[in-house]
Parts: sequence; structure tokens; C-alpha cells
Amino acid sequence: MRRKGLASMAVQTVASTPSSDPAARTGTVDLGPAAALSCRECGERTPLGPVFACEACFGPLEVAYDLPGGSEAAEALRKRIEAGPNNIWRYAPLLPVPADVAEKPNVNPGFTKLVKADRLAAELGVTGGLHVKDDSGNPTHSFKDRVVAIAVEAARAFGFTTLSCSSTGNLAGAVGAAAARAGLRSCVFIPHDLEAGKVVMAAVYGGDLVGIEGTYDDVNRFCSELIGDPIGEGWGFVNVNLRPYYAEGSKTLAYEICEQLGWRLPDNLVVPIASGSQLTKIDKGLRELISLGLVEDKPYKIFGAQAEGCSPVSKAFKDGHDVVRPVKPDTIAKSLAIGNPADGPYVLDIARRTGGAVEDVTDEQVVDAIKLLARTEGIFAETAGGVTVGVLRKLIESGRLDPAGETVVLNTGDGLKTLDAVAPTTGPSATIRPTLESFREAGLA
Amino acid sequence: MRRKGLASMAVQTVASTPSSDPAARTGTVDLGPAAALSCRECGERTPLGPVFACEACFGPLEVAYDLPGGSEAAEALRKRIEAGPNNIWRYAPLLPVPADVAEKPNVNPGFTKLVKADRLAAELGVTGGLHVKDDSGNPTHSFKDRVVAIAVEAARAFGFTTLSCSSTGNLAGAVGAAAARAGLRSCVFIPHDLEAGKVVMAAVYGGDLVGIEGTYDDVNRFCSELIGDPIGEGWGFVNVNLRPYYAEGSKTLAYEICEQLGWRLPDNLVVPIASGSQLTKIDKGLRELISLGLVEDKPYKIFGAQAEGCSPVSKAFKDGHDVVRPVKPDTIAKSLAIGNPADGPYVLDIARRTGGAVEDVTDEQVVDAIKLLARTEGIFAETAGGVTVGVLRKLIESGRLDPAGETVVLNTGDGLKTLDAVAPTTGPSATIRPTLESFREAGLA
Repeated sequence: MRRKGLASMAVQTVASTPSSDPAARTGTVDLGPAAALSCRECGERTPLGPVFACEACFGPLEVAYDLPGGSEAAEALRKRIEAGPNNIWRYAPLLPVPADVAEKPNVNPGFTKLVKADRLAAELGVTGGLHVKDDSGNPTHSFKDRVVAIAVEAARAFGFTTLSCSSTGNLAGAVGAAAARAGLRSCVFIPHDLEAGKVVMAAVYGGDLVGIEGTYDDVNRFCSELIGDPIGEGWGFVNVNLRPYYAEGSKTLAYEICEQLGWRLPDNLVVPIASGSQLTKIDKGLRELISLGLVEDKPYKIFGAQAEGCSPVSKAFKDGHDVVRPVKPDTIAKSLAIGNPADGPYVLDIARRTGGAVEDVTDEQVVDAIKLLARTEGIFAETAGGVTVGVLRKLIESGRLDPAGETVVLNTGDGLKTLDAVAPTTGPSATIRPTLESFREAGLA
Repeated sequence: MRRKGLASMAVQTVASTPSSDPAARTGTVDLGPAAALSCRECGERTPLGPVFACEACFGPLEVAYDLPGGSEAAEALRKRIEAGPNNIWRYAPLLPVPADVAEKPNVNPGFTKLVKADRLAAELGVTGGLHVKDDSGNPTHSFKDRVVAIAVEAARAFGFTTLSCSSTGNLAGAVGAAAARAGLRSCVFIPHDLEAGKVVMAAVYGGDLVGIEGTYDDVNRFCSELIGDPIGEGWGFVNVNLRPYYAEGSKTLAYEICEQLGWRLPDNLVVPIASGSQLTKIDKGLRELISLGLVEDKPYKIFGAQAEGCSPVSKAFKDGHDVVRPVKPDTIAKSLAIGNPADGPYVLDIARRTGGAVEDVTDEQVVDAIKLLARTEGIFAETAGGVTVGVLRKLIESGRLDPAGETVVLNTGDGLKTLDAVAPTTGPSATIRPTLESFREAGLA
């Protein structure tokens, strides 16, 4: 039933298996509680290493843990977390990182604000409490800092000296910054025709930035080739051969939300969908907290949010399909514009299992939602935040999200990065001469 | 000896004294430990109210406190601070804000990262420990969120319903966001010919944004007129009639630096100079911590940093003058481009008293320093951060800052806001076809 997603993963797998794989890279790695990689499809276990697809069935690999259990352990763990640093490393016991991770130079993302959004709640009619998890507060102002920080630790563990990725924006900046802080070389690949501002953000950290003459798909294909070539020896591609570790970074969003609510699960979460990885890892994080006894086990609903111009998962959800049919993206929400989302089928499973939904909004609704969030809460969101807030509004209006439930909506990036989205409709109320008379005439007094 | 600075303050004072000043606005205000306003020149005390210049001598007013003392009180205070929220409100007992400030809706700035900058230290030859206080992590990505947050509490205390300011960028965004979160109206005045990006950042929070046909000086003059007019009744101008409170927000930088160092004073601080207010308040904050017994009393040196194209304080320092001669700014460091800095004379006093200095760097050095900081630490600074890091380098190279001392350099804003500064010299290492051969030819493998 997931042939489509798996087939596309399989192609990458073949290309990305390292041509040589020194024992040193898989033997004695210390990634804390991470015990192995396990296949999300067939459950087959693989030793920790720079691989991302199951050798048996080509299914995606994810990190499996040896985690403590029991109520006594839960109490000790909670205390340890609360005494930890104000960043994702407070959750080191639940992440694939060594115990001393906080002492190493890294950008220390996370523990971003969970904003009690009473004014937005009033506008939307949410009565059960509304919170915005605002990841624009991360070092390079998007949630990507979380996932890259974990990938850096995996890169160190496997002896990689160059950090790399394909990107169209946020990820390039996150990788550049993280590599600079960690003292790793970085080499990031982007389509050659990116907007000038994004190129600056990607290049300023001093790593190599390579423009590829072609589309983002061409960039990805090139990266897969590079991993299979001797040139790529020693290179950690955060979103390819380090992907199982990288993806775990999104669990920290779930941990933080629950801790910031006072170790409680919210009733509803509205999460953006690009590849779908973030949403699946948030679900994984919530389930871990339940099984560890850190939060009370109770139902929660996860809602996925897409832009209409790239809504393959939303369409599959509405059509009752298990298969996600790829689309060609056409939306201002470029950080979510993945037409063939690898984790789409898992997102469908989670939305259905938890009683949530997947919905999409038009670009116009995205812009309206960005402005609504800015006007009510003083949070200037990237287009992805406009997508989630817009979808939240739509879900409430159509009665599919219970406004009496406690709700968390994610803003995963910063409006400064997508100024173009709001620029055409955002400007001065008036332009006047520097006189009181002119101000009176403007009608703003 | 300070006639120049005072004369320019005096002009504003006359214009900005409210035409009517209801008793309700000065009578029963609760601003926590703030006891009165006191004149920095003659010491005359004035009740707390929306005034900023001494009626006796036109000197600038600042907040005077009733603070606890004694070693027992210090221990209790330290514990209370450490148990407080991860933002400036942990220091509420030392700020002009009500005790319940953290429960009110506000953007909760501060407690930004103090980054141990070992790689930058190695490049600069700092051996005693180097830290970057990175205020780009604030809600609107500049230190202005700190000062505006305090002004919001003063505005509430004095019954103002509109929050206002004159601005060329960072402050407009900070006021817009803070007012939105607090549920206050905002009306912000800018020169009409600001860059499009800055206009969007100022306007997106939904308050009124008014373009003024004229220069920034014209905008300021207009605001002074507005405060004296009945139209301005009920308006709190954060950087004019709320300035004594607003300015106190910068003390939190000093508190955080010392707490994050483990309740210890650094040996050297490098601080940018715009009006000079921030530097004077950091000094005030450090002296408060000493007198409260929260840090050990030991010498520290404060160094001021300007861009050569707007370096009136640096020039006065080098010339051995007490008077700061105004200049017409011409620099890419626009957030520091105040040609007639009101607190310039106080900055000179502090640099001389502490054994520091005031230095300036060229625009080219600013750009180099931005890139140096990005490349070594993964921090993308606004031009103001390029100024401080550039000045730090110059001070070390000329032997005026002891590299064996523990040093803190401030980055007060985000590089995303001043992309133009680095754009002309920041781009891809190479542009290639999507083939391994083309990549090999580029010489980056």
C-alpha cells in the first residue's frame, strides 16, 4: 500500500550506500541511548551507522532506543531534564547523542517559547487554551537548527569532516551555522537561481556553497550520486545518509511542548507537512513521553497542514487513500513545497489513528494568517506558520477541531525569511508631511 | 562641560512635557522597586511619571530604586532570580515593573545566549575566554525588545493606550510586536523612504505605520510636537516620554552576562554606541550587581564601539574631550547612526573611569567582522555586531584590550535585517552542472 513512497526511497538507497564503510564508522559509536537503527516497515535492526534505508526491504530506518522505564525512573528523568540546559540537550537522555553533548561546541537550538496566544484564541474562537510553539527563536530562526544539531553529533560519531545537504533555504543556513560553530567544513548545494537573499544567508557562514544548474530535484539527484562516489567519502549529508539521526531532532518539539505545558499532552496539535518527517517524529516523541511515564496517557489529535499549491497529503487524506500521489509544487510556502513527501503515508496513518485530519489553505489564506498571527500575538511567521495558523482557522470553522480542547499550533520559521509573501499587501497606513495638520488629515489621530 | 548634549535634550524637554498630566498618571503607579525618577546631573528627584527631563536643570532623568541590601538579601535575591522565567522578568526585582509582570501578555525578551566563542577567540588571540552575548535571539531579533518590554509596563502604569516611537528599523518592529502582544494600539513614525523590507517588518504587526516626508530628524521633531499636542494625549513614546523606563531595559544585558558567567563580572565588555544609552545602562547594571552583593567587586573595563562613518564619541575620546561634537552619519551600520548621541558624555566618563576606550572601524572592517563571526561561531550579526567584533579585533591588535582578560562582546541584532551589508561580497563558491565531473572541475572536492 505504500509502494509509491518506498519506490522513491529505494532509488535513493541504492545510490547512497557508501562505496566503502569503515568499521570505525559503525563499530564503537557512542550516541547515548540510541541502540540501533530499525526499519519502520519490516522492523529489521541494523547497527548504528550512516545508512538510512533497510537492506532487507528498502524501508526507511529510524533510531531505536534503550530507554529507562518505570515510575521511579520517570521521576528521576523528569528532574534531570528540568535541571538541564535551556536547549534541546536537556533531552539528551532521549536523543541519539552522547551524554556530554552539551559540552561540545554547537548552536544549542530549542527550548523556544510556547506562547499563550489568548488574543489569537479570541479571534479564532478557541476556548480551551491556544499556544503557539514559536521556533523562529532558534539560532538561524527555523526548526531546522534542531535536526541539524543532532546530525552534527552523528557526523562526529561517524568521523565525517564535511557537513552537507541539498537545500532551497532554511536548511542551508542551519547547516552552515552549525558546521561553523562545530568547526566542521560545510559544503551545501542549492539550485543556482535561488533568490539573492537566501544565497547570502546560506553563504555567510563561510562554508562552500555550490549552485547547481538545474532544479531542486537535480540538486538532490546530484547529492545522491556524490554519496556513492569516492569524493563523498567523509561527507555527512544531514538529510540523506544522516537522515535517521537528523529526523529525531523533531521529537524535541514534542518534548518541549509537553514540558512547557507542565508535563501534559495537549488535546490538538497543528503541524506543517513538508516531507512529513516532522509530524511523524512529533507523534513519536509524544508516544515516548507516555511510555516513559512523563505525561499521563490520554488521547491527542495531530492535524497536518499544507498549502493548497502543494497538498498531496491533504488530498490523499480527503480522498481516503493510503497512497500519496506526487504533485508539482506551486505555492508561496516554499519551505513546505515537497511534491513527493517521503513520510506522507505515515502522516496519513497518524492523522487517522489520532482522530486528526490533514487540511490545506490557499496562498491568500496563508498571507492572511501570517498577518493575523502578527497582529494578535506579535509573532512574525514564515509562510509555513501562515499555513498552520490558516489551517487551524479552517479546521475550527468547519467543526473538525474542537475549540474547547487545548491546542498547540507550530510556527517553524521566521517571517524575515519570507518577506516577499506579505510585502505586496503590507505598508504604511499613511504618508504625511511632518506637521500635526497633515497627521490630523490622515485620520489616524 | 556637557552643554552640547544638555542643550539638545533641553529643546526636546520643553516640547515633550505633556500639556495636561492627570494625577492618575503619577499618583498610584506600581512599578515595583522603582521609587522615583532622579536627575543624572543635579540629583533632583521627581515622582514616577511620563517625563524624561529634570524640571530644575533639564538634565536627563533616570529611574531610582529602593533595592534590598546585605549578604542575606543577596542570597535570597540570587535564588529568586535563578528560579524565575527564562527571560528578563527573572530580574523583575531590579526593574521598574510590577511584581506580577511575568503574568501579563508581553513578548518576554531576554535571557539570550552567551556563546562561548572559542574559535573566534583563537582567531583574535583572546586567551582569557571570549563570549558573544547574542541578542539576535530576541523575539524581533534585536536588543530593542528588552527596552520596549519595559516601556510597555510603564505605558500600562501611566494609562497610555497607544504605544509609539520614531524609528528607522529595529525599534519599529519591536514596538509593533510588543503592542500587538500586549493588546495596545501602536502608531509608529518612520521616514517615508525607508527600504521596502524594513517597512514590511514595521507594518506587519498591524499597528499604524506612518511615513513622514522628511529625514529621521524631521520624524523626531514631529514626534516631539505630537507629545505636546492634545492629539498625543494617551500616547506613550517609548524613546521620548517613556525613555527613563525604556532605557532601564538595557541593564538586563549586564545582569544576564554576569549570571551566565556564574555570577561573575567579566574583565572586558565591548558594547556598541548609538545614543550611548545602552552602554551607560550596562555600566549601571554592573554597579547594581556589585552593590547588591550578587557579584564580587572587582575592576571591569567597558569599551565603546562605533562605525567610523558615525564616530563622534570615539573622536571625542581620542581627542580627550568631554564634549561630543555632532556629526552627519554615513555608514552601513544604520542602527548605530545617531550623529548627536544624547548619552555620549556619559559614555566618555564610563570608558575613562573603567580604563576602557572608545574605538571605531570602517564599513569594510564591519563587513569583515560580520563574516569572521559567522565563519567562526555560526552567528550572523547585524552591522552593529560587525562594529563590536571589528572594534574588539582593533583593540586587541593595538594592545589596548588585554587578551588574557575574560571578554564579552555584544551582538545586538540579526544579520537577516542588514543583508545588504554583506550581499555584494557573499555568494556561491562555484556554480556547476549537476555532474560529478563538473564538481571535480570546480576544485571543491
